[in-house]
Amino acid sequence: MGKQESPQKTEGGGGKGQADASITPRSQDYSQWYLDIIKQAELADYSAVRGCMVIRPHGYAIWEKMQRELDDRFKATGHQNAYFPLFIPLSFMAREEEHAAGFAKECAVVTHHRLKNIDGTVQVDPDSKLEEPLVVRPTSETIIWNAYRNWIQSYRDLPLLINQWANVVRWELRTRLFLRTAEFLWQEGHTAHASEAEAIEEVRRMLDVYADFAEKVMAVPVIKGHKTPGERFAGALDTLCIEAMMQDGKALQSGTSHYLGQNFSKAADVKFLSREGKLEYVYATSWGVSTRLIGALIMTHSDDNGLILPPKLAPIHVVIVPIYRKDDERARVLDEAAKVQAELRAQGLSVRLDDRDTLQPGAKFYEWEMKGVPVRIEIGPKDLEKGVLCVVRRFVQERDGEAQEELRKRKKTFTPRAEAIAGMRELLDGMQRDLYERARVMRDRRTRIIDTLDDFEKFFKHEGGGFAWVHWAGSPEQEEELSRRFETTIRCIPLDDQIPEGARGAGVCILTGKPSPQRVIMAKAY
Amino acid sequence: MGKQESPQKTEGGGGKGQADASITPRSQDYSQWYLDIIKQAELADYSAVRGCMVIRPHGYAIWEKMQRELDDRFKATGHQNAYFPLFIPLSFMAREEEHAAGFAKECAVVTHHRLKNIDGTVQVDPDSKLEEPLVVRPTSETIIWNAYRNWIQSYRDLPLLINQWANVVRWELRTRLFLRTAEFLWQEGHTAHASEAEAIEEVRRMLDVYADFAEKVMAVPVIKGHKTPGERFAGALDTLCIEAMMQDGKALQSGTSHYLGQNFSKAADVKFLSREGKLEYVYATSWGVSTRLIGALIMTHSDDNGLILPPKLAPIHVVIVPIYRKDDERARVLDEAAKVQAELRAQGLSVRLDDRDTLQPGAKFYEWEMKGVPVRIEIGPKDLEKGVLCVVRRFVQERDGEAQEELRKRKKTFTPRAEAIAGMRELLDGMQRDLYERARVMRDRRTRIIDTLDDFEKFFKHEGGGFAWVHWAGSPEQEEELSRRFETTIRCIPLDDQIPEGARGAGVCILTGKPSPQRVIMAKAY
Repeated sequence: MGKQESPQKTEGGGGKGQADASITPRSQDYSQWYLDIIKQAELADYSAVRGCMVIRPHGYAIWEKMQRELDDRFKATGHQNAYFPLFIPLSFMAREEEHAAGFAKECAVVTHHRLKNIDGTVQVDPDSKLEEPLVVRPTSETIIWNAYRNWIQSYRDLPLLINQWANVVRWELRTRLFLRTAEFLWQEGHTAHASEAEAIEEVRRMLDVYADFAEKVMAVPVIKGHKTPGERFAGALDTLCIEAMMQDGKALQSGTSHYLGQNFSKAADVKFLSREGKLEYVYATSWGVSTRLIGALIMTHSDDNGLILPPKLAPIHVVIVPIYRKDDERARVLDEAAKVQAELRAQGLSVRLDDRDTLQPGAKFYEWEMKGVPVRIEIGPKDLEKGVLCVVRRFVQERDGEAQEELRKRKKTFTPRAEAIAGMRELLDGMQRDLYERARVMRDRRTRIIDTLDDFEKFFKHEGGGFAWVHWAGSPEQEEELSRRFETTIRCIPLDDQIPEGARGAGVCILTGKPSPQRVIMAKAY
Repeated sequence: MGKQESPQKTEGGGGKGQADASITPRSQDYSQWYLDIIKQAELADYSAVRGCMVIRPHGYAIWEKMQRELDDRFKATGHQNAYFPLFIPLSFMAREEEHAAGFAKECAVVTHHRLKNIDGTVQVDPDSKLEEPLVVRPTSETIIWNAYRNWIQSYRDLPLLINQWANVVRWELRTRLFLRTAEFLWQEGHTAHASEAEAIEEVRRMLDVYADFAEKVMAVPVIKGHKTPGERFAGALDTLCIEAMMQDGKALQSGTSHYLGQNFSKAADVKFLSREGKLEYVYATSWGVSTRLIGALIMTHSDDNGLILPPKLAPIHVVIVPIYRKDDERARVLDEAAKVQAELRAQGLSVRLDDRDTLQPGAKFYEWEMKGVPVRIEIGPKDLEKGVLCVVRRFVQERDGEAQEELRKRKKTFTPRAEAIAGMRELLDGMQRDLYERARVMRDRRTRIIDTLDDFEKFFKHEGGGFAWVHWAGSPEQEEELSRRFETTIRCIPLDDQIPEGARGAGVCILTGKPSPQRVIMAKAY
């Protein structure tokens, strides 16, 4: 236990004092806490362009891990990647009426193609006006279906299963890093099918892919359901979604999968010759997730000391911090640290040896804790002598009634070297499971089956709110009224297998008393 | 040898007749051949937006392979990825004068942020005009250096080694798929350093990374050199490049690495506190390669039957085509094909079993040959009996004076099953080496050391041209005049170690007779 004696080291969690100084606690201001994490963990910055963000290397590394996991799943389900133009001719956007209306208010439009030095300042050259304005894609249905017209002739060309990784722009007025920005990164799947049944199967398949990714990789429990007609994607016949609960009890829509019917194939005139020799319009789906997921990740797991990352998305699994005072200690400690790094890397883990001379160990602990690295190994001369490694977990699941001292002991252990190295994968796997479990318990604790408007009011006004399973049969106007009173919306109409035992079956609307076939989930939302 | 007897199969190369029908031979029209390959191999399409391309799944899969290889090299040299905004405020572009002037003529500009239904048609809402126009990035120096101002305070923050994978837009008037399009995909590295020496070292390091990638992965030999002042990146103090030769003898600039000095740090006011406690402007580099490399790949290796891909960039290494007539044959053949697939996959190879019932084997041969799959394995009932695999190579290196019959035999072999499978990696590695070697020989054959204007004229007007190593000391005007006469430009001033024995040393300019310290490479170029 000699570690605590080192004058270069801070106590327990590492740099708590500093963390308090720079991150607003959740209990004090949840919104500010979120922004503080993003800033202090160096995930993103606002840029000089209104509503556009810079994704910094640590944030982008998390996105790359997400991309790899999702992309593997897309390919395993038969999809191929492709790339379509950033610009959409205005007339294309207009082809599908609902779609155009849905996106009209948030479109960045290119109107000119040249700059010119006029009177000594660089300006837009008025002579370079485009014949037809170009919309920077807010989503790519219209431009993609225009290309599909050339690719699809007969049923032999179907299904066409394509995904695109791209940037999109939606001119949002109120932005929030990762959750809602004018430009964001995403993937958009666009598939073409010979029958409605096959297209609907695809919509469900990709919803399941998203749910699996959210739960297994992000350690974020989600509920799968349909959106109400008012919340559907503009131009879709049905929108399915996964909804997650953040630590403040609010819902975050984390992925959507749309059944588009023949709306876009009709707008772009894409027909195919069926097996039966008939010309028919193609059936379409689209589905997407975005950098918004990084927001979901932060708000599900992180704490007042910084980011917490599920190991499957951590760009660095283990950071090794060498502790020494004298030069001869330095050599021995760094030598051992390099060996430990090599042995852990041989297991396929991503391991950073932080041998910077410019920082004290305490500052390093603070930085890597802030950035959410799951495991820190401290190596000092005494550990070398004893043949142990000091292993500090970024997160351990609290147990009921556990004393802080107990928790701290489980968080930081001195383990025989060989055992610590051999057990690292299992330690990380356990952390992944625990994070999911903690998030599930948190969500379930804030989930209520509610049957009266009084209880609904109590839940959202006095008990912090969360997910309310309620029967609803009100009109869209009544839904809006409820939303004004409580800031809640219908998050989804859950799929059958998502409904817990006590919430099944028909009932009556909490507002109107009219019969309702099944409960919906209401919540405040991001 | 029973294969040829099958009525479902075409002769030798597979579907030659069809290939002739759809691909213009190089000898007839090289430009059209290039476009035919792109169309028939389904690499890309022009889109409805002027000059913008759709990268189809097969083309995008090649790009993904390139990305993976490059990204690994960037990370191995200490770089991290990040993402910066698509839009650049007009005033930022204007900050670095040369830069602004260099890109002004090809900028797509966003001026409005809303559409509106006016008189029944969707139009740009005139009330949504932006206060400041936004340029769609043609390159990101200005927006990135604006962000760096917040990230760099002291020498401890340097070097900052960042790369971005992104789309960029340059409003080109004359476009050509992959080589020159209004929107293209690329990576752009942007690094910040505490000293000029360190920055210049980075510029060279990344040039070497590009050259290594081009030669080892793309199997494209390149020459490293400096651009002349007139050909420099707008705002750079020095631009280094790699130049490759295409099959028509023209040069293709395949990657550039720029030393930017303090131009951009001054424009964005990015200073750092040096080790000596002085405030200094930061030194910058930038470097990039783009989807243009796919054009280089096509024009270096492909032939009149379609695409030829070096195995390291082939999305599919081996395609297996089952051959059968009767149902019982089908079951046995498919069973064996699946086993061969599994065994090859176990070696880490990408193997497609083409079990489509809708196509005859001949049509499959034709398709995969067109798409450049390096190896095809045909499996029929007779092969099963004999315990052999029919292995067909997409490409074999021709030997001097070899008869066509001999070549065909080497292209298509019947090899004992175990041997064929065990030798597959070596076969692919050999193909990779042969492709590089063929390209190198082709280039060297069309490379001349030229000392007089007469010989220069002869080379470019009567001998097909290629790379001319010449002494040059003319003025920029004389260079332009030469360019008008012969369509040639100075491709680069080669680095010392790139100069072959016979071309070393000083001499006199082929036009003016003035002394010249070293030869440059002149060529026609894409």
